[in-house]
Amino acid sequence: MPGAAAASHAGVWVTFEGGDGSGKTTQAALLEQWLRQQGRSVLRTREPGGSDVGVLIRDIVLHHRGDIAPRAEALLYAADRAHHVATVVRPALARGEVVIQDRYLDSSVAYQGAGRVLDADEVRQLSLWATEGALPDVTVLLDLDPATARHRLDADDKPFDRLEAELADFHERVRAAFLQLAAAEPERFVVIDAAQPVEEIARLVRERVAAALA
Amino acid sequence: MPGAAAASHAGVWVTFEGGDGSGKTTQAALLEQWLRQQGRSVLRTREPGGSDVGVLIRDIVLHHRGDIAPRAEALLYAADRAHHVATVVRPALARGEVVIQDRYLDSSVAYQGAGRVLDADEVRQLSLWATEGALPDVTVLLDLDPATARHRLDADDKPFDRLEAELADFHERVRAAFLQLAAAEPERFVVIDAAQPVEEIARLVRERVAAALA
Repeated sequence: MPGAAAASHAGVWVTFEGGDGSGKTTQAALLEQWLRQQGRSVLRTREPGGSDVGVLIRDIVLHHRGDIAPRAEALLYAADRAHHVATVVRPALARGEVVIQDRYLDSSVAYQGAGRVLDADEVRQLSLWATEGALPDVTVLLDLDPATARHRLDADDKPFDRLEAELADFHERVRAAFLQLAAAEPERFVVIDAAQPVEEIARLVRERVAAALA
Repeated sequence: MPGAAAASHAGVWVTFEGGDGSGKTTQAALLEQWLRQQGRSVLRTREPGGSDVGVLIRDIVLHHRGDIAPRAEALLYAADRAHHVATVVRPALARGEVVIQDRYLDSSVAYQGAGRVLDADEVRQLSLWATEGALPDVTVLLDLDPATARHRLDADDKPFDRLEAELADFHERVRAAFLQLAAAEPERFVVIDAAQPVEEIARLVRERVAAALA
C-alpha cells in the first residue's frame, strides 16, 4: 500500500534512515544506479540542506559557534524540511521522478526521542505541519548494531571511556527509536539488517522499490 | 494582573505591536528613557533578529532572493523567537530587567491572519510551542488608521493605484486582527489611539508599565 502522499503524485519517494555508518549513502547510490539503468529519472537529495534556503539553514544548524536553543534547532530543521518538500520533493514527484532522500522526519523523531530533550511526538507533529503531512512511499531503515557501525566509522578500536559509553548508550536509544517507528508503520518501512553484504542489502532495497514502482 | 510568564521572573516584559508607521520605535525609546531615569535596567530588543542566531535567520527571511515556502517562513520566524526568548528575554527577566521589545507573536498572528495563507491559530500555537508559552506582561498596541500611517511613512500623497488599494485592504485586515487579539486578552493588552500627540501616548504607556512594575 502506498504512503500517505502517494495518491497525489506520479513519482515514487524513497527515504533512507538509520544511524551514521549504517550504509545509507552506499545503498542510495546503488539504488540510483539501478533505477537509471531502468530508464527512470532520479533525484538524489538530503535533509538538512537539500534546497537553496536549506543550504543556509544547514549552515546555521551545523556550523553556528555556540549553542542553539533546542526548540530553535527543531524549528530550523522543520523550516528546512518545509522548504525542501515544497520546492524540491513535491515538484520532482509531480514530474514522475523517483526521489531518493538521505534522512527525513524519522531521523528527527528518533534523534530527538533518544536525546530526551524534546518530546518526540511533538517533533513529529512539527514536521508534519511543516510538510502538510507529506510521507514517503518507502522508507528503508538500515538497522545496525551501534558498535558495528562505530567500527565501520572508526577503524581505531580503542577501549570506551565514559563519554564514549554515554554516546554508545545514545546510539542504542536512536536504534531502538527507529525500530519503534518502523513497527508503527510497517507498510511504509522496510527494515533491513545492515550487517549483511552490500549486494544483498541492495537486492532487498530494489525488491521493495520495484514493488512501489509497479 | 500580570501576564502568564510573570510568575516566573523578577523583571517586566513589554512588547510593542502595531502596523508600520504607528510609532512603535518612538514610544519604545521614550519608555526606555523614562525607565532609565527611574534607575531601572532596560533591555531593548526586537524580533526577528534579536539574538546571535536570530541575526542569521533574519538575514534569510528578509534578504533571500527568491520565494520562501510559507510554512518554512513561519518556522524560521518561530525558530528566531525560540532562540531569542530562551537566550535573551528570559535571562534578562531573571536578572530583574525591563525588556522592551519591538514586535512579538501578536505580529506573526496578525500578519498571517491578514495574509490568509496560513491559519492564524496554527501560527499562534507554533509560537507558543517555540517559547514554551512565554507571554509578555504588557503588550502595547499602537492602533492607527492605515491611511494615516501611510501618510506618516510616505509624505508623497499621490492617489492609490490598484496594487496600493490591495495593500490598503491588507493593512486594514492587519489592524482588525490586532484589535481582535487585544480584545481576547484585555489584561495583557493596552490599546492606545496612535493618532494622539506623542507625549500623550507616552504618558499612557508609562501609566500601564508603572502599574506592572508596582
